Amino acid sequence: MAALYNRVALIGLGLIASSMAHAMRANGLAKEIVGYAKSAETRAVAVEIGLCDRVTDTAVEAVLGADLVVLAVPVGAMGELAEEIGAHLAAGTTVTDVGSVKQAVIAAVAPHMPEGVHFIAGHPIAGTEHSGPRSGFATLFVNRWWLLTPMEGADPAAVARLRALCEGMGAKVDEMDAAHHDLVLAVTSHTPHLIAYTMVGVADDLSRVTDSEVINYSAAGFRDFTRIAASDPTMWRDVFLTNKDATLEILGRFTEELFALQRAIRLGDGDHLHAYFTRTRAIRRGIIEAGQDTAAPDFGRSAIVVEKSG
Amino acid sequence: MAALYNRVALIGLGLIASSMAHAMRANGLAKEIVGYAKSAETRAVAVEIGLCDRVTDTAVEAVLGADLVVLAVPVGAMGELAEEIGAHLAAGTTVTDVGSVKQAVIAAVAPHMPEGVHFIAGHPIAGTEHSGPRSGFATLFVNRWWLLTPMEGADPAAVARLRALCEGMGAKVDEMDAAHHDLVLAVTSHTPHLIAYTMVGVADDLSRVTDSEVINYSAAGFRDFTRIAASDPTMWRDVFLTNKDATLEILGRFTEELFALQRAIRLGDGDHLHAYFTRTRAIRRGIIEAGQDTAAPDFGRSAIVVEKSG
Repeated sequence: MAALYNRVALIGLGLIASSMAHAMRANGLAKEIVGYAKSAETRAVAVEIGLCDRVTDTAVEAVLGADLVVLAVPVGAMGELAEEIGAHLAAGTTVTDVGSVKQAVIAAVAPHMPEGVHFIAGHPIAGTEHSGPRSGFATLFVNRWWLLTPMEGADPAAVARLRALCEGMGAKVDEMDAAHHDLVLAVTSHTPHLIAYTMVGVADDLSRVTDSEVINYSAAGFRDFTRIAASDPTMWRDVFLTNKDATLEILGRFTEELFALQRAIRLGDGDHLHAYFTRTRAIRRGIIEAGQDTAAPDFGRSAIVVEKSG
Repeated sequence: MAALYNRVALIGLGLIASSMAHAMRANGLAKEIVGYAKSAETRAVAVEIGLCDRVTDTAVEAVLGADLVVLAVPVGAMGELAEEIGAHLAAGTTVTDVGSVKQAVIAAVAPHMPEGVHFIAGHPIAGTEHSGPRSGFATLFVNRWWLLTPMEGADPAAVARLRALCEGMGAKVDEMDAAHHDLVLAVTSHTPHLIAYTMVGVADDLSRVTDSEVINYSAAGFRDFTRIAASDPTMWRDVFLTNKDATLEILGRFTEELFALQRAIRLGDGDHLHAYFTRTRAIRRGIIEAGQDTAAPDFGRSAIVVEKSG
């Protein structure tokens, strides 16, 4: 594939940015990749593993001459970063981000973007529970969705070019309004994560059940919660603080439904429970049919089964 | 390995029993395997795929002459089944079950066991979200825990023989008190399942987020919930109705902690959130070290990553 950008600046070199570096290289999407991270240790690792063509000592150096700048830092750090680099961005540059929340990022970043710079917020829905510059891999985005939330009046050519980059890394791209993005992600990601964190915290607190029991018998269902509760704490703190309204709304609905099921258990209402549990199977089938998971009982892992018998 | 039992009767031919049939055969643990299921269709499938040496038309026929009887029906059906077969069990026979709840099964089954029959309740912590006679496979129990909850005064030789069977199928065996089992499973399995069912139900209800969005963007975390919320509805109804007290206790603690996190979000208390999310990573590491999951980002599945970026 012909390179889509001459110089891509990756600011922040965690899982997403390092996977982008691998994926852009593997697919010849950028002529040069420049990287910067706040932590000197992260920069040293990036140099050691040859993640980028160049690693700079400041964010400003990284963005000079770049035609694409990717903000890949925690959501809470986006505003300060945008303020720092804003004045150094040339007209015609595209700036995007990979944050999990879009309204708050747009509010923090857009005011610092000079006239003629195309700021197009984005969010790749892919990842693992690992973080840091060593955790990236070139196929992270393959068959995953990359949501773009361009503002009104965004330049169609700039959007199309960014979209081509995402697709070049194997992703499927969808465009939507930032507020809708934040609601959808509150349902599919933010609230599930908060719940998983809570359940793991409860298990850790319960003195009558030892940690080793929780760990040994985790295959009964709990294990899936720990996987999502192991994600980066800073990233998740920022997600909840910046997508507060949507998360609290979905949490409210969640506790309402949970209380209804809790009441059915207390009253012994088996029909209510059975009907509820039957309904949820259809969604699971939809996910497998949409290619976002596999039905294989062991996911190809021999003797490590992900699910549960109770 | 020398056969441990001459004739094993499997009553109920779902995921666990059919996996036992495959595992016992693969490891030469039983000279003859006899099967029975309430549904004529299930029996027909079992005959078609050659799951057992014989499939009988009644539970009583299946247990005649068996030296091991495995009750592998939903927890709510155990009492009636025990009553039906009790009088036909010869002294010296071992009876076990594979239910996810132990106190309720013991209360329902033990009164129907004649003098000289060894009833040793059990629970293999393994499974997939699939059910039925076709879903079993021989390695389901490999490296998984099988909990036995023998009653006071249980015959040590009968317990040792049953333990050897479980180990012969690849499982690790632990013995514990039935009440403790029910509390541990309320934490590691029952409450996580109820929560997962609830979250999937909320997503399904939310009309502003279409089903296809929830499904498409499920890789952000929601997908792991749907996997555990796709399990057999009848089995889970019975689990909650029969392990009511422990489940309600853990649910109470869960909602208490969830409300504390919800309050931290509302008040913008980032330190509280960060500290909480940091603590949960340790449990995840423990699960990987205990061999109950893998740290591989893609579980060996190319381009299908189980985790999330937000």
